[in-house]
Amino acid sequence: MKSLNRLKKLSAWLSKENIEAAFITSPDNIFYLTGFRSEPHERLLGLVVFQEEEPFIICPAMEKADARAAGWEHEIIGYQDTDQPWDFIEQAVKARISNIRQWAVEKNHMNVSRYEELQSRFSSISLQDVEPVLNELRMLKTAQELEYIQKACELADFAVEVGVSEIAEGKTELDIIAAIEYEVKKKGVSGMSFDTMVLTGINAASPHGTPGMTKIKKGDFVLFDLGVIYEGYCSDITRTVAFGEVSVDQEKIYQTVLQAQEAAVNAVKPGILAKQLDKIARDQITNAGYGEYFPHRLGHGLGISVHEYPSITATNPLRMTEGMVFTIEPGIYVPSIAGVRIEDDLLVTKEGVETLTKYPKSLQII
Amino acid sequence: MKSLNRLKKLSAWLSKENIEAAFITSPDNIFYLTGFRSEPHERLLGLVVFQEEEPFIICPAMEKADARAAGWEHEIIGYQDTDQPWDFIEQAVKARISNIRQWAVEKNHMNVSRYEELQSRFSSISLQDVEPVLNELRMLKTAQELEYIQKACELADFAVEVGVSEIAEGKTELDIIAAIEYEVKKKGVSGMSFDTMVLTGINAASPHGTPGMTKIKKGDFVLFDLGVIYEGYCSDITRTVAFGEVSVDQEKIYQTVLQAQEAAVNAVKPGILAKQLDKIARDQITNAGYGEYFPHRLGHGLGISVHEYPSITATNPLRMTEGMVFTIEPGIYVPSIAGVRIEDDLLVTKEGVETLTKYPKSLQII
Repeated sequence: MKSLNRLKKLSAWLSKENIEAAFITSPDNIFYLTGFRSEPHERLLGLVVFQEEEPFIICPAMEKADARAAGWEHEIIGYQDTDQPWDFIEQAVKARISNIRQWAVEKNHMNVSRYEELQSRFSSISLQDVEPVLNELRMLKTAQELEYIQKACELADFAVEVGVSEIAEGKTELDIIAAIEYEVKKKGVSGMSFDTMVLTGINAASPHGTPGMTKIKKGDFVLFDLGVIYEGYCSDITRTVAFGEVSVDQEKIYQTVLQAQEAAVNAVKPGILAKQLDKIARDQITNAGYGEYFPHRLGHGLGISVHEYPSITATNPLRMTEGMVFTIEPGIYVPSIAGVRIEDDLLVTKEGVETLTKYPKSLQII
Repeated sequence: MKSLNRLKKLSAWLSKENIEAAFITSPDNIFYLTGFRSEPHERLLGLVVFQEEEPFIICPAMEKADARAAGWEHEIIGYQDTDQPWDFIEQAVKARISNIRQWAVEKNHMNVSRYEELQSRFSSISLQDVEPVLNELRMLKTAQELEYIQKACELADFAVEVGVSEIAEGKTELDIIAAIEYEVKKKGVSGMSFDTMVLTGINAASPHGTPGMTKIKKGDFVLFDLGVIYEGYCSDITRTVAFGEVSVDQEKIYQTVLQAQEAAVNAVKPGILAKQLDKIARDQITNAGYGEYFPHRLGHGLGISVHEYPSITATNPLRMTEGMVFTIEPGIYVPSIAGVRIEDDLLVTKEGVETLTKYPKSLQII
């Protein structure tokens, strides 16, 4: 049971840090630790883990059977919409441990209401952040996780292939998104990693444009940014292709992004720092005169979450190690000329790097 | 400017409560108050509102132009991934007000990290919850908002129509979802309110099943639960249809849900309490012997969020008033027999109720 092993690591961390219990509420961390995937919306979903005592899940009563079916063998406390779940939590915790001096919580996820409930129901002295240890555990992928991510990447390659084949004069961004998701879902995929982006013309020239009824026209780039979820694991790919002719400026932008991206990809190996990777790509773009048009970090880790650790920024001193999976995705966005981004998902291997997304990157003119 | 008006109401509330400033971070509330819609993921997006002083938005630098284009006329502070946005927030707040004794925040949304930043940077004495006043403002829809919701409901009706027309022996749940979303997106819709659900057989008999490769077969019910976002506003509809023959037990379950749903819908009018509506439906289901198989609340408000106020539960004493929009969605889920849920979106009118989702509800056998 992989999930049990992960729970044991968390319990060991609690012992080492002398923290009595962890209260976990993010669906991604709960999935990682228990195998149970649920999106509770405004309802409470929680996992409480101790150093020695039996952990428990608290969830809406109607999800108890799903949690059990996901393989969770410990206690599951179900509550109705009319119950006060915090009464159940208080009771279950106090039945295990009389006094909690320190709770570990996800400081970037737990909200103030729940924080106040914890404070009022337990005479704990302080709150520690459990996210660093979970981020670190999740950052190094197991063989099983890599298998899922690889499959998600294959499906992302396929999705881009569908999108490129759909490009035609007069089609809208949304037409192409509809076609991509249709074909991907027909393959049995239940969800995309995030809202599929197909951007063209001035939309593509914004790093965070929103797809709409804009029609593709000759002389524009078309940018695809999408990902597929497979067995709970995400992929994330970006490709930019040209429709019709390409201007000299557009081609220069494309080649600059491509060279920056490939230079950073080729530099990946155990031991290199995240910020060094960012610098390799950023220097190339800056030297070509587009520094101000690359306004975001180089990349981000991915796995259960489409954005997780490690973060590949200009300031992150993290040393890359075997088993990390992350994106490299430089972009240049020049209003009224072009927006180009190229993104791959990479795995740090013992010797260097493996590129998990394989759709071609050389400039394609459709 | 509707958004300005909303900001003024929030400022008036701050004055009345003697709270110096509100710090808003939920994308839905920011959209409601500013017209700017953005999903910042793990990055910080914030809106700070004062009693008298100029409000400001803080967002990733690459989204500044979008915030401006959305019509926001006040200050926008952009930050890079390598900046510390809290330094900018501290500076901008202190330039307006030297001493904040009380902050209003969204206690169900603000996370502990941000709470700790607020506490460490401002010598505030306490934190008040801004959500009740925002929930109350958002609960009563304007004519413009109703227009968007009505359009979203029309599109949801259309989506169910597509789904029903796709039902055929051997098709999977995901096949049908693919077809629905394809047709909806071809109409220019950029997003669904939530992951479209098409559930059949034993999947439909769980109130929160997950669609997959299960094939539709004769004798099963097929449950559709879906919604469409139009101009930032959500719809949410559920219909259940039969494929092939219907057993006596299945028909009884269907008719019980339908009668309970219609009884509650017909009871909607200004002055009735939320919990009375829940009781009307629940009593019918309980009297028919299925009480234990209806494990969730009767419904929920909807608008910018697919789940918002009012919550229609057995314990909510809220009095319904003109302009509220919410769902009524009783369900009965009997393992190995059938899962049936029927859901409409309702508007409380001066005289009674208007049903916004109009797809037929009488038992359809395909």
